[in-house]
Amino acid sequence: MVAAVPGSRPTTSPTLGQYLYDSLKAEGIFEIFGIPGDYNFSLLDTLERYEGIRFVNGRNELGAGYAADGYARIRGMSALITTFGVGEMSACNTIAGAYSERVPIIHIVGAPKSADQQAHKWMHHTLLDGNYDVFRNVYAHLSAYTAVLTPENAAIEIPAAIRAAKQTRKPVYLVVAIDLVTRPIVLGAAPAAAPAATNPAALQAAIDHIQRMLNTADRAVLLADMLTLRFGWREAVRDLAVSLNVPAASLLLGKGAFDEQHANYIGVYGGAFGSEQVRKIVEGAGCILSAGLVWTDVNSANDTAKLDAGRLIDIQPRAVRVGDTTYDQVPAMELFAGLRGVSRQRSGAMPQVAFPYDRMVGEPEQPIRAASYYPRLQRMLKEKDIVVVETGTLAYGMSQVRLPAGADYICQQGWQSIGYATPAALGAAIAAPDRRVLLFTGDGSLQLTVQEISTMLYFGCRPIVFVLNNGGYTIEKYLNVKTANQAYNQIPDWRYTKLAEAFGGQAFTAQARTNRELDDAIAACERERPNRLCIVELIVSDPLDAPDYLHRLRHHLVEQERMRNAPG
Amino acid sequence: MVAAVPGSRPTTSPTLGQYLYDSLKAEGIFEIFGIPGDYNFSLLDTLERYEGIRFVNGRNELGAGYAADGYARIRGMSALITTFGVGEMSACNTIAGAYSERVPIIHIVGAPKSADQQAHKWMHHTLLDGNYDVFRNVYAHLSAYTAVLTPENAAIEIPAAIRAAKQTRKPVYLVVAIDLVTRPIVLGAAPAAAPAATNPAALQAAIDHIQRMLNTADRAVLLADMLTLRFGWREAVRDLAVSLNVPAASLLLGKGAFDEQHANYIGVYGGAFGSEQVRKIVEGAGCILSAGLVWTDVNSANDTAKLDAGRLIDIQPRAVRVGDTTYDQVPAMELFAGLRGVSRQRSGAMPQVAFPYDRMVGEPEQPIRAASYYPRLQRMLKEKDIVVVETGTLAYGMSQVRLPAGADYICQQGWQSIGYATPAALGAAIAAPDRRVLLFTGDGSLQLTVQEISTMLYFGCRPIVFVLNNGGYTIEKYLNVKTANQAYNQIPDWRYTKLAEAFGGQAFTAQARTNRELDDAIAACERERPNRLCIVELIVSDPLDAPDYLHRLRHHLVEQERMRNAPG
Repeated sequence: MVAAVPGSRPTTSPTLGQYLYDSLKAEGIFEIFGIPGDYNFSLLDTLERYEGIRFVNGRNELGAGYAADGYARIRGMSALITTFGVGEMSACNTIAGAYSERVPIIHIVGAPKSADQQAHKWMHHTLLDGNYDVFRNVYAHLSAYTAVLTPENAAIEIPAAIRAAKQTRKPVYLVVAIDLVTRPIVLGAAPAAAPAATNPAALQAAIDHIQRMLNTADRAVLLADMLTLRFGWREAVRDLAVSLNVPAASLLLGKGAFDEQHANYIGVYGGAFGSEQVRKIVEGAGCILSAGLVWTDVNSANDTAKLDAGRLIDIQPRAVRVGDTTYDQVPAMELFAGLRGVSRQRSGAMPQVAFPYDRMVGEPEQPIRAASYYPRLQRMLKEKDIVVVETGTLAYGMSQVRLPAGADYICQQGWQSIGYATPAALGAAIAAPDRRVLLFTGDGSLQLTVQEISTMLYFGCRPIVFVLNNGGYTIEKYLNVKTANQAYNQIPDWRYTKLAEAFGGQAFTAQARTNRELDDAIAACERERPNRLCIVELIVSDPLDAPDYLHRLRHHLVEQERMRNAPG
Repeated sequence: MVAAVPGSRPTTSPTLGQYLYDSLKAEGIFEIFGIPGDYNFSLLDTLERYEGIRFVNGRNELGAGYAADGYARIRGMSALITTFGVGEMSACNTIAGAYSERVPIIHIVGAPKSADQQAHKWMHHTLLDGNYDVFRNVYAHLSAYTAVLTPENAAIEIPAAIRAAKQTRKPVYLVVAIDLVTRPIVLGAAPAAAPAATNPAALQAAIDHIQRMLNTADRAVLLADMLTLRFGWREAVRDLAVSLNVPAASLLLGKGAFDEQHANYIGVYGGAFGSEQVRKIVEGAGCILSAGLVWTDVNSANDTAKLDAGRLIDIQPRAVRVGDTTYDQVPAMELFAGLRGVSRQRSGAMPQVAFPYDRMVGEPEQPIRAASYYPRLQRMLKEKDIVVVETGTLAYGMSQVRLPAGADYICQQGWQSIGYATPAALGAAIAAPDRRVLLFTGDGSLQLTVQEISTMLYFGCRPIVFVLNNGGYTIEKYLNVKTANQAYNQIPDWRYTKLAEAFGGQAFTAQARTNRELDDAIAACERERPNRLCIVELIVSDPLDAPDYLHRLRHHLVEQERMRNAPG
């Protein structure tokens, strides 16, 4: 086998497929997700004979794509192989979500034979109109880069696509005809990556401006958000908080971006819906340093979070905005380095905060409810756990759970596609086989992508899966303040503890209706987890049981609706 | 409630939502498929209070979309409601498939509030870049028509979209901001549909040309294909075959387009892979009339089917090609009417043909195999059954099964997206609650969209489901002639008969390993079907057991590969 490391010059050319996999392996991608189809046989045959990358086939493309997303959040980048038309079009949601949440996925599509494409033949898996560009045109809307690979351009296009994915933290799209994968490529020196441009004067001016703002502010605070996670700034951001001696919060999309056991950590800032203590500290600060802020309606808690632009230092990957001045060509990592020399004249002890779920609530024989199960879930978490949380009710509750040190938190809080978390947990388990993965999902969400539980069993993954059975789409019931008891928010009542058996697998299963049952189930999972996948069904009797965060969100929406309908 | 029938003039304006549902109901759409999401609440709240249309919520958008596709194949048109971004992007495959196979689905998307869109706010379910056109731009590649609905344009755009769907038999896309659904619309006379243009001279010239070709041909044959089904030409095509006294075959994509119990019917024409008798009749004819031909690689049996263009009369919806002359502006239904006066000088008895699965094969205690189970499946079919067949191994075998009179056959033979058939069977069952629905799916395919079995149970649908368990993607093993024993074609070994229980439902289940067990299971289904859903697992011991059609396809591919690798 030709071992062509990109950039080196082997004496014989690798095939297009080999070069592609060499390039991905060089980025630390050792597993590729996907679904077979007759147009990607040559990609998969090459992969099956390739050393160092394993193919992980999911049950459908949406699941495989979400798994790739979860994998990339742990490993930095991932790859997905689908087949032309039918396969790739089932992955649109996952790629759009990765685009929205800045997750680099290299999406590789196997296409019909070159000759059939050139003849515009009406082949299966096409729109039966002879157009072979249409799906790439679709993905051009959802990707940072697209290319049609050939043996002639592969040595240029593959590095360019990977570079685009790394620089933008967005998915990219590569399509290759089935007959070209096994062809030797034309090697050449791949064009070097353009060095990230830095404007030293702008960098220094920004540092000076930040110094002045810190000097005049009575109190300062740091906010870590989504791009801190995606661009790998966690340590730099933590060090900045320490050197400036400021309290640090994260936002919902950035949960996990700041070590939640760190002395400087105060919690998740969620405007009027989150902790009131955190809100006061953040909104009362004269200077707010934000790292990788993504200002969505979720992060702003429906505009109840108030970040005064005049007091904000908004550090973005390639620029920083200080008050109303934007400094371009200022790479964040260089700014963090430069800020090490900045001092803060006013300093003092960290504010003492209480975390919402630090205290155990509920008697053993009482039914479980949000107030009682979130503290128990928080208590069971351990260092370096990977905590995967589904969008919806659980995402709001888990956002207030304090994470252990070294934990990773995966939650699609921007794109918010229900069904994401189960396959993402599969991806995380494949990415980090030595770490414990916990999945927290809801009944409604699980039903969208349940078959990836089968894939977990097939590949020997052993996450602990909590399924919150609250009888339907509770989050939607909360968000709709105009009507009640919507039939469309009802779902079939599954036997969640029977799923593993139907999927031909072995799992430890438990149902928890009371706090004692939950405590017992958690203890059992601790014992069982080394040997098998665990599924715990949390059965709440009240379908509108929810965490405080969601109650406050609902209250806000009801007030808005009342104002809208008020006369005059 | 304002009962606004499109075209009439109510005294008060209906809301946008009411007008939309009035318009769909007027087309015979009494059920709408979809998944709730917070941006489509106003669409679903309006629908829940609307009389005459029921909302059928699937388990995910891919399934709901496929169900809409199956519904439209029975009822002529269907509708699908998704939510912005996350929901609609999960439906891309189903809409692309509907485009490819000419199935009109009205896809309706609920979008963020107008004010948020106008402010380009970064809302959840967006790409977090302020762009609210991106998903419509995606669908512009996959739809015959797209529109952003407002109260001002609804009375124009909704009829225009429905008209486009009817004329093209393709999906269309409508998106509406959540706050506009309940607003009264501006009524006005919707522009009348432009009458389908006919060129009377071209029509007459085509008829004369066809008459001459028929006169000179010794033998003639008729081929019914996909567009005969989609444009509703079945009766006209049958009458044409009778009046010309010619034998009629269908193609794979058009199976079911010609009554398979009719005296003139000879079978499915599949080039070198199908019946040799049919091939001889078709290829030996001096004149081949085709109705709604879609010349794909599947229909052409990998180019082994030979339709000499010089002998072909290719009737398309708006034109006919006779030999090398194309007559435009010749609507098919007008041509069929005109051809009633055409006579064929040579006539005679219909050729006597044998159908591949007419004869029972296999002793009771022998293991089931393709040769033995297809005749049994054929024998169990009844008049007016709806037969839904998954792409793959089963599609090739079932294509050779002779259908009873009045049967509908649903199979995605052009787009060929595995996973399609299960939700499509749900859609068919909803579309025709009084008819028997039989689903034939494979293990690999079922795993993609299994959760719609739950939706069937939830809505009381009672199809008979046959799951062919042959240990993986057998079709892919057949199509890949370059390698063998691919790990990527293996799948988890599910307990298919446990699924209904896991989904909280009641089903009759059976496993059939021998011909006797299959006979018994079929008899049991006859008894059980009125009361509950039936699932029969067909367990074949040889993972490469397949129908003859597939063996011949494989042989052809092996020969091609051998030629490619031959020296010189």
